[in-house]
Amino acid sequence: MDTLTRLEQTIAQRRQADPSQSYVASLHAKGLPQIARKLGEEGVEAAVAALSGSSEELVGEAADILFHLLVTLNARDIPFAAVLAELDRRDGVSGIAEKASRSQ
Amino acid sequence: MDTLTRLEQTIAQRRQADPSQSYVASLHAKGLPQIARKLGEEGVEAAVAALSGSSEELVGEAADILFHLLVTLNARDIPFAAVLAELDRRDGVSGIAEKASRSQ
Amino acid sequence: MDTLTRLEQTIAQRRQADPSQSYVASLHAKGLPQIARKLGEEGVEAAVAALSGSSEELVGEAADILFHLLVTLNARDIPFAAVLAELDRRDGVSGIAEKASRSQ
Amino acid sequence: MDTLTRLEQTIAQRRQADPSQSYVASLHAKGLPQIARKLGEEGVEAAVAALSGSSEELVGEAADILFHLLVTLNARDIPFAAVLAELDRRDGVSGIAEKASRSQ
Repeated sequence: MDTLTRLEQTIAQRRQADPSQSYVASLHAKGLPQIARKLGEEGVEAAVAALSGSSEELVGEAADILFHLLVTLNARDIPFAAVLAELDRRDGVSGIAEKASRSQ
Repeated sequence: MDTLTRLEQTIAQRRQADPSQSYVASLHAKGLPQIARKLGEEGVEAAVAALSGSSEELVGEAADILFHLLVTLNARDIPFAAVLAELDRRDGVSGIAEKASRSQ
Repeated sequence: MDTLTRLEQTIAQRRQADPSQSYVASLHAKGLPQIARKLGEEGVEAAVAALSGSSEELVGEAADILFHLLVTLNARDIPFAAVLAELDRRDGVSGIAEKASRSQ
Repeated sequence: MDTLTRLEQTIAQRRQADPSQSYVASLHAKGLPQIARKLGEEGVEAAVAALSGSSEELVGEAADILFHLLVTLNARDIPFAAVLAELDRRDGVSGIAEKASRSQ
């Protein structure tokens, strides 16, 4: 099974765990605003690492974004497969056309 | 081939394209700060969608994060596989221990 | 009257304006999530400008943050004076002690 | 003297302090990327508080943004007065026209 699918399952399991034992459960105990906040902060940290960090730092921040994105999707009961399906749907559409279609 | 691997290859190809024809090429023409900025902004947009958006909106923002994360990694010549390897490395480490190990 | 007080009043007035004539009114027409999203995005843009932009660009992004912060406060019916009072309250507390007191 | 002018002076003084005694000095010891990152993160936190927090929480996050914005400007040797001057310059320009002039 691939990394992200396995991670998605791990996160779903840890959601039910003791918040003192699991980072995922501790985020859920604080509520969705804290989960969303972490996702947004990881975006900032990855942006800063892209400009000023080593490759290793950027890899770490990219992993943090993926992790917190999966936590956020799970908290909203959205399967990661739905995001991959959306990327597949966009595939083949040129980026310029795609971007135009997303703007109102 | 899976969605993210295929998208990574598409992004690598479009990097060389005409900026007026390709969104990826247009980001590269503006430089790494613009690429990093987009990644950070997508993190914010996903956080807001997680709190206030429909499932469909959150799926769209999650797809935007993945897309711009792959563009950022490509711009820094980092393979997505390195990020997956980092997630695999962390796997098995409990989230609490992992988080502690990442803090100084 | 000082700049920020005057800007706060201008924003309060424009909130009632025609969304096609006023940027503030157009943000309100889209709702609080759009206002919050803009504030978050301006934070990202200022961070990127701090690392990679000219002084002029950072000044522009800093002005954007202040503007969207005042729009956000107004949307939540919070006077800017309340934020200044909070900064005054913190004043004299050493930064280290203050930060510790803010963490749980 | 007003709150933000006084805070700007306090920050300039603390920049020279012992990093173990001053939060401002500790940020400087970590470097500009860490300062920029904090500013971006505060933008995310304020956006989340605007959507999901109490008035008191939003006031606290707004104070955090202003504080870290002043630290960032100081780190780039830009006086806060330059940002106020930019806001004054924009004043009178309608928001819609202003926004159009800022887009390329």
